[in-house]
Amino acid sequence: MTQLSPTLELAFDLISRPSVTPEDKGCQQLLADRLAPLGFKAEHLRFYDTDNLWLRRGDSGPLFTFAGHTDVVPSGPEEEWEFPPFEPTIHNGMLCGRGAADMKGSIASVVTAIERFIAKHPSHKGSIALLITSDEEGDATNGTVKVVETLETRNEKIDWCLVGEPSSTEKVGDVIKNGRRGSLGAKLTIKGIQGHVAYPHLAENPIHTCAPAIAELAVTEWDQGNEFFPPTSFQISNFNAGTSATNVIPGSVDIVCNFRFSTEQTDTGLRTRFEQLLDRHNLKYDLQWHLSGQPFLNAKGDLVDASVEAIRTVCGYETELSTAGGTSDGRFIAPTGAQVLELGPCNATIHKVNERITAEDLNTLSDIYEQIMVNLLVTD
Amino acid sequence: MTQLSPTLELAFDLISRPSVTPEDKGCQQLLADRLAPLGFKAEHLRFYDTDNLWLRRGDSGPLFTFAGHTDVVPSGPEEEWEFPPFEPTIHNGMLCGRGAADMKGSIASVVTAIERFIAKHPSHKGSIALLITSDEEGDATNGTVKVVETLETRNEKIDWCLVGEPSSTEKVGDVIKNGRRGSLGAKLTIKGIQGHVAYPHLAENPIHTCAPAIAELAVTEWDQGNEFFPPTSFQISNFNAGTSATNVIPGSVDIVCNFRFSTEQTDTGLRTRFEQLLDRHNLKYDLQWHLSGQPFLNAKGDLVDASVEAIRTVCGYETELSTAGGTSDGRFIAPTGAQVLELGPCNATIHKVNERITAEDLNTLSDIYEQIMVNLLVTD
Ligand SMILES: [Zn+2]
Ligand SMILES: [Zn+2]
Repeated sequence: MTQLSPTLELAFDLISRPSVTPEDKGCQQLLADRLAPLGFKAEHLRFYDTDNLWLRRGDSGPLFTFAGHTDVVPSGPEEEWEFPPFEPTIHNGMLCGRGAADMKGSIASVVTAIERFIAKHPSHKGSIALLITSDEEGDATNGTVKVVETLETRNEKIDWCLVGEPSSTEKVGDVIKNGRRGSLGAKLTIKGIQGHVAYPHLAENPIHTCAPAIAELAVTEWDQGNEFFPPTSFQISNFNAGTSATNVIPGSVDIVCNFRFSTEQTDTGLRTRFEQLLDRHNLKYDLQWHLSGQPFLNAKGDLVDASVEAIRTVCGYETELSTAGGTSDGRFIAPTGAQVLELGPCNATIHKVNERITAEDLNTLSDIYEQIMVNLLVTD
Repeated sequence: MTQLSPTLELAFDLISRPSVTPEDKGCQQLLADRLAPLGFKAEHLRFYDTDNLWLRRGDSGPLFTFAGHTDVVPSGPEEEWEFPPFEPTIHNGMLCGRGAADMKGSIASVVTAIERFIAKHPSHKGSIALLITSDEEGDATNGTVKVVETLETRNEKIDWCLVGEPSSTEKVGDVIKNGRRGSLGAKLTIKGIQGHVAYPHLAENPIHTCAPAIAELAVTEWDQGNEFFPPTSFQISNFNAGTSATNVIPGSVDIVCNFRFSTEQTDTGLRTRFEQLLDRHNLKYDLQWHLSGQPFLNAKGDLVDASVEAIRTVCGYETELSTAGGTSDGRFIAPTGAQVLELGPCNATIHKVNERITAEDLNTLSDIYEQIMVNLLVTD
C-alpha cells in the first residue's frame, strides 16, 4: 500500500473508533488536540449522554464554521461486511468502513484543509470554528441544537456554516445542498369499538373507517413545490392495528406519518389541512404533532458563491444546488440566520453495510474545503 | 346453602377442575365412570395433546349424540373475579365459575338428563352417545374433527347431534342455533418497495397503495343474507406495517381478515371476488386462505321439532331459531349429514371474568334435554 495522505491517515484514525451514537470514543478530543497548536480553543459541551465540541480560532467576525458529527449508525450484521466495519481498509482505491462517507471522511478533510489554509494564511480575516456533535444519527436532542442554544445565549453568531454531510452523488462536489425541506411528524390514533368478528354490528372497525381517509391522504397534492424544492410529500411509515387474534375487531389503529415540506407550506397550514381531512371523514382520533425541522433555503449568498467557485477551481465542473433528501443538523443552525450549506462525499453507501467512498475523493474534498476558506476569508 | 341438585353437584365437580385448553383434568374419565353403569361404552381417543371421549349406549340406529367440550378458556386476571374461577360458588342464585356457561353446565345437565331418561325408558329406541373433546376453545385440530373422522372411517353415523354450546340470551331455551355461518380467513401481504420517507419516488408505500382497496372491501355488500342467515360480513382483524422507525417507508403490509358467510355464498365465490378486487386495484400481493368451516343449516327436521316441542313443554314458551354468532364444533359434524342443533344456557358472560348463569337454569336445561330424548327416542 502506498503512503496514506494526511487526510486519509486521520480518516483511518477516526473510523477505527467504533463511535456508534451517542458514543464519541475520543474522536473529539483527538480533533481538539490536533487543532490546539493552531490556536483553536476547545469547549467541551456535554449534555446528558452526548459529547459536543466547539473549537474556535479567532474572535472577530465573520465566523466560518464547519459542522459535523463523530457518531455513526450501527454497523448492522458484521458478517455482511467485506472488511470489518471499524477496521478501515483501502481496497481497489475505495476507503471502506463505517463512517467513511457519513461523516468521518469529511471531518478528516476539513482538519487537514484548515492546517494547510492556516499555514498559508496565518492572518486570515474573521474566525474559523468546528461544531462537532455525537448524536446526529440519534434523536438529536442533546447535540447541535443544544450547542446552538449555548452560542445564541452568549450572542455568538455563525455567519457561514458548511455542514460536512455526504451531498455528492456520482463524483465528489457534483451536488451541494443549499436547503432542506421541513419535516413534520404525527402520531395518530384512530378510535373504533373493539368486538368479535362474528358480531360486527356491535363493533366499529377503525381499519375500515379510516381507509377512505388514508386513500385520500395518499393522493393529495399538498403543493407543487417551487424553483428550489420538490413538492411536499406525505408518507405513512407505520400502521398497526390488531391484537394478533384472528377473531377480534381492533379498538384502535396506531399510525405514524410524516410530511417533508417545501417553503410553499407552513407546518401550521399542513396541520390544519390534515385535521380538516380527518374531520371530513368523521373520524374519532388522537393526534400528536412533532416538528422536526422547518424548511430552510440558502438560495444565494457568499457561501453558495464561494462553494460553487471552489468546486469549479478544484474539480473543473459545475456543481448542482439541491434541496432534496433527508434532514440534517443544518435545520438547527439555519434559524439563527447563518448561511447553511452541505457539502461532503458521495452518499450511495451511507447507513448501509460496506459503506465506502473513493479514497482519492477525500483529498479532493479537502482541497475544496481549503479553497472555500480562501474564497471567504482571504482578502485580495 | 340448600342441598345442590344432582346436576349442580356434577357442575361443581367439573368446574373445580382447571381444565384450560387443551387440558381435561380428568373430566372425561369422570363422565365415563359415571355413565358406565348405565351401559355406556367408553372410547378414549387421544390425539397429540387432546383428550377426546366417545361414549355410546346401544348399537342400533337412530343415534342421538350430545357434543360438548371439557376445556375452558383461561380465567384472565384472577383478582378481577368476585369468586375464584375454579372454586364454583352459588351466590344470589347464580352459579359462578369458569365453564359454568361454556360448557360444563351443559355437560352436567345432559348427564343427569340421561340418568333420569334411562331410569324411566330403559329400552328406548336407537342409541345415545356423548362426543366430548378438550380443545374446542383452542385451534380445534385434534378434537371433534378427528373424532368425526374416526367415526366416518368405520361408518358410524350420527343422526341427531345436540351441541351444548350456550345458545340462550335472556332465559334458558329462548334461542337455539340451527345453523352457523361459514368462516373463511385470509392472510394477505401487500407488497411495495421499502425506502426512506425523504425519497418517496424511490419507494412504493404499500399502506398508501392498498388503502383504496381496503376502503372498497369495507363497504362491499357481499350478499343480503337470506331467511336463515344475516348478510355475509368481512372484517380485517390485523393490519401491520412499518419497522417502527419513523423515517422508513415499509416494504410490505401484513393483513389478517375474515369472512363470516351465509349459505348465499360459497368460499370459492368469495375468494374469487376478493382476488378480483385486489387485482382491479393493481396490487402485488401474497395470499393464503384458511377455511375454518362451511356454513350449515338445519332448517327443519326431527331434531328441530323435538327441541322446539321440548322447550314448549318444559318452559311454556316458543324458542327462536337463529344462525347468528360464532362458529362451534357443529361445523365438523354437520358435513357428515347429521342434523345439528345447539342448545345451552345463557351466553352473556362466556369467555369473560365472572362467568355465571342462573343456577336454576341448569335444572331446567336438564329437563329440556331429557324431554328432547323422550321426543326422539320413545315411541308412543
Ligand atoms: Zn451524517
Ligand atoms: Zn363452548
